[in-house]
Amino acid sequence: MKYHVDGDLVSADEASVSVRDRGFRYGDAAFETLRSYNRSIFEWDAHEARLRRTAEQLGFADAVPNDLRERVRATLAANDCDEAYVRLSVTRGAGAGRLTPPPDIDPTVVIIVEELPRGGLSGESVWDGPATVQTVKTRAVPDAAVPSDAKTHNYLNGILARLELQRAANEEYRADEALLRDDEGHLMEGATSNVFFVDDGTLKTPSTDGPLLDGITRSVVLDLAADEEFPVETGRYTTTDVREADEAFLTNTTWELRPIARADGVAVGGGPVTRLLARLFDERVERRQYE
Amino acid sequence: MKYHVDGDLVSADEASVSVRDRGFRYGDAAFETLRSYNRSIFEWDAHEARLRRTAEQLGFADAVPNDLRERVRATLAANDCDEAYVRLSVTRGAGAGRLTPPPDIDPTVVIIVEELPRGGLSGESVWDGPATVQTVKTRAVPDAAVPSDAKTHNYLNGILARLELQRAANEEYRADEALLRDDEGHLMEGATSNVFFVDDGTLKTPSTDGPLLDGITRSVVLDLAADEEFPVETGRYTTTDVREADEAFLTNTTWELRPIARADGVAVGGGPVTRLLARLFDERVERRQYE
Repeated sequence: MKYHVDGDLVSADEASVSVRDRGFRYGDAAFETLRSYNRSIFEWDAHEARLRRTAEQLGFADAVPNDLRERVRATLAANDCDEAYVRLSVTRGAGAGRLTPPPDIDPTVVIIVEELPRGGLSGESVWDGPATVQTVKTRAVPDAAVPSDAKTHNYLNGILARLELQRAANEEYRADEALLRDDEGHLMEGATSNVFFVDDGTLKTPSTDGPLLDGITRSVVLDLAADEEFPVETGRYTTTDVREADEAFLTNTTWELRPIARADGVAVGGGPVTRLLARLFDERVERRQYE
Repeated sequence: MKYHVDGDLVSADEASVSVRDRGFRYGDAAFETLRSYNRSIFEWDAHEARLRRTAEQLGFADAVPNDLRERVRATLAANDCDEAYVRLSVTRGAGAGRLTPPPDIDPTVVIIVEELPRGGLSGESVWDGPATVQTVKTRAVPDAAVPSDAKTHNYLNGILARLELQRAANEEYRADEALLRDDEGHLMEGATSNVFFVDDGTLKTPSTDGPLLDGITRSVVLDLAADEEFPVETGRYTTTDVREADEAFLTNTTWELRPIARADGVAVGGGPVTRLLARLFDERVERRQYE
């Protein structure tokens, strides 16, 4: 594979950043996880807008290049890669100084791609297998400490949550995703996913008033439900609500919609609403690539 | 300069890590900032112990190599560098997988050095100039989200605090260090420093019960004060306590002891206790390098 680093296509094994890069030193970088279907990036505009919002939060919005989409396209083309996972990072660059950012920013742009079969209406599904989820002790980082709508290379909170799953695992059981709560105990999100559940005929997901990342797939699912005039509610919920739900599922760019088989050991599962939304999502993927 | 990357000495301009390294992707790495005086690392044992505690918190303690000190020495020798700033990082390595860490860890060890005049009893002082500090809105990350005693490449919280200082700055005034509080409003620490103040003849500093990093220089200063039988108290304080203190100073490895000239615009300054402790610190530096 070839990756795209700072304007150049380089072999994956040689793709590197300076040890002085602030993306390495401090996780001082914005990123997006993208999905290419038939060499077309799904929801590019939403991802680019969020990347720029992250850079704005971190104070280097003006330094983000304007040709990011072209760079992603060039990377996919160089790898002759149609169905792919793409990770796009923009760091604050190397620069001088210690922690305080330098005034002049020369950002580092890194694009990683991997083949990822598309699933969808007719393809091979990679991530449609049901997930098991487990509530963890690690709590979401409050907005007052690091804004949750910034998607950055500071991802230890999610890693610590996933490590709890590894430590709790045994031969028969290891949860796939950790459910994080805020400091008051309300359900926020998975380590890399948003959580939806169906309760009494209403689709519910935690509101972005809390410290959680507003996922692009989450937004698409809310759009799809609205188009179907399906009752939707965003609010403050607990992990008990998920355990007692009629259906539940996770969303992210890689997983798309993934039913929750078990939450904290309790069987939940998908159902007609989850299946309908997954089908509508797949149809949107098929439609979008030809637009 | 030459840096030490994964066992090899390489020129600083070529020193790099893979874009797949988890230290870059997620800030999934432990680090220490060290100071070399006369080519001897000050408080090596304490720094190495803390690095291993950080790796333990992150679940890769067993993967940390045993020859870190030798690597640091080799780096200083290769640069013919006696008085130096040293940054030692151990990442979880590249590895496969997405967020969940792989079971087999091949860590990446990076050592960066820069010349830094020693100051001390007879040398040129770099950081003895008084600091101005400003309370910021950005709050410390709670222990429940990411343990504060882990010193990691997730440093955006401190960067956001420093960016507040930049945004609040004008031509006449820009604070050097941000004071962070916990979610209850208690004073915790600076973005890269610990805070001490003298009030009514007692040396005070926030207790490590709160979410703050237990600095090595902080510990040394507490030791020095105890040796002098100077009254010391650790507890829960506010930024008002600093503004109203008789003396105040910051500590970290690079700055050693640095008087606080102004806190939130209010003149505080060092004083006899700060000067005495700074002198005792310098004497300890001189003594230690010959042990």
